[in-house]
Amino acid sequence: MRTKTPFLADRMLDAAARLFGTQRFHEVRMEDIAAEADVGKGTLYRYFNDKEELYSALLDRASTQLLARLQKETAATDEPRPRLRAFVGAIIAFFDEHPHLFDLIQRAEVLRGPNFPWKKTRERLLQLAKELFDEARACEEFVIHDPETAALLLLGGMRAVIRFGKRPRPRDLARRIVDAFLEGNALKMPQLECRN
Amino acid sequence: MRTKTPFLADRMLDAAARLFGTQRFHEVRMEDIAAEADVGKGTLYRYFNDKEELYSALLDRASTQLLARLQKETAATDEPRPRLRAFVGAIIAFFDEHPHLFDLIQRAEVLRGPNFPWKKTRERLLQLAKELFDEARACEEFVIHDPETAALLLLGGMRAVIRFGKRPRPRDLARRIVDAFLEGNALKMPQLECRN
Repeated sequence: MRTKTPFLADRMLDAAARLFGTQRFHEVRMEDIAAEADVGKGTLYRYFNDKEELYSALLDRASTQLLARLQKETAATDEPRPRLRAFVGAIIAFFDEHPHLFDLIQRAEVLRGPNFPWKKTRERLLQLAKELFDEARACEEFVIHDPETAALLLLGGMRAVIRFGKRPRPRDLARRIVDAFLEGNALKMPQLECRN
Repeated sequence: MRTKTPFLADRMLDAAARLFGTQRFHEVRMEDIAAEADVGKGTLYRYFNDKEELYSALLDRASTQLLARLQKETAATDEPRPRLRAFVGAIIAFFDEHPHLFDLIQRAEVLRGPNFPWKKTRERLLQLAKELFDEARACEEFVIHDPETAALLLLGGMRAVIRFGKRPRPRDLARRIVDAFLEGNALKMPQLECRN
């Protein structure tokens, strides 16, 4: 019996990501994915029973990769603010490197309903943000007023910047986002009456 | 010939919103919508040729209503900060009053592709936010560093709070979001070395 290899699975998932990202789900056929991955249809079916299974595997792999990357990049420093910047920067970089991922997630959410595959990852990202806030509080570096709302504002804001923000990205985008998140988007000025 | 009345159209759109919001699009039939609206099927078809047309009309109506409400509520004051709070509060209230709207928008985006019906509304909201920033700058009340990114952070952050934030909403949610947006989420503290 031939064994399954991670290398081959990855190649098929990469091919599937490209096709799902550029065509409508129902238009993508298993044979197209096999052809794109340059494997036989039989090989593809040995790894994945159907398109839905492939799609779930794709989101699972993206989730595992993203969380591993966050783990690694935030571990590079002990300081809360650079850790928060590493968190923000890694998420932006990951989505930029996987340009179809948002559409894949959104489609899964629309068609699968409330318990779609990415839901746990979203909750984990909010949790990680709140852990970073807790660390900063413990270090007395900064204290976040309302961590629950703040984590949503941070991740929701990042989502919009990733999806609709201009490219190429400013080099210091993660720093700007963290600074705006912690200290605000406004330059402080003396309060004057508005003259209308 | 019987004429079309806005009242009847609204009743059918309300019925459609309820059904599209709780069932999968392909599961909702025109006759279900007619029954839910308590009109004959012939009447429904006199207003809308098919489900897709009804769906677009639903998003168009929501867009018109939201923009009219923003116009009205931000006009209640001349001061930039209260105007920004009114903008934030009106968007949150509108989506809370139309609990299915996010799903309707998301489905449209997934199934219709890049030029889906809500796209112009999204761009208009970002534009309105930037106009409020410009006013505040003109009044010398506050100056937003990077208005393009800031508008995305504000609207994306609000989106996450609306979708995933706890309910009932805190009474002062709009104020909290605007304060966090302008002055940051962090309490200022002396910078200390992190002791790990």
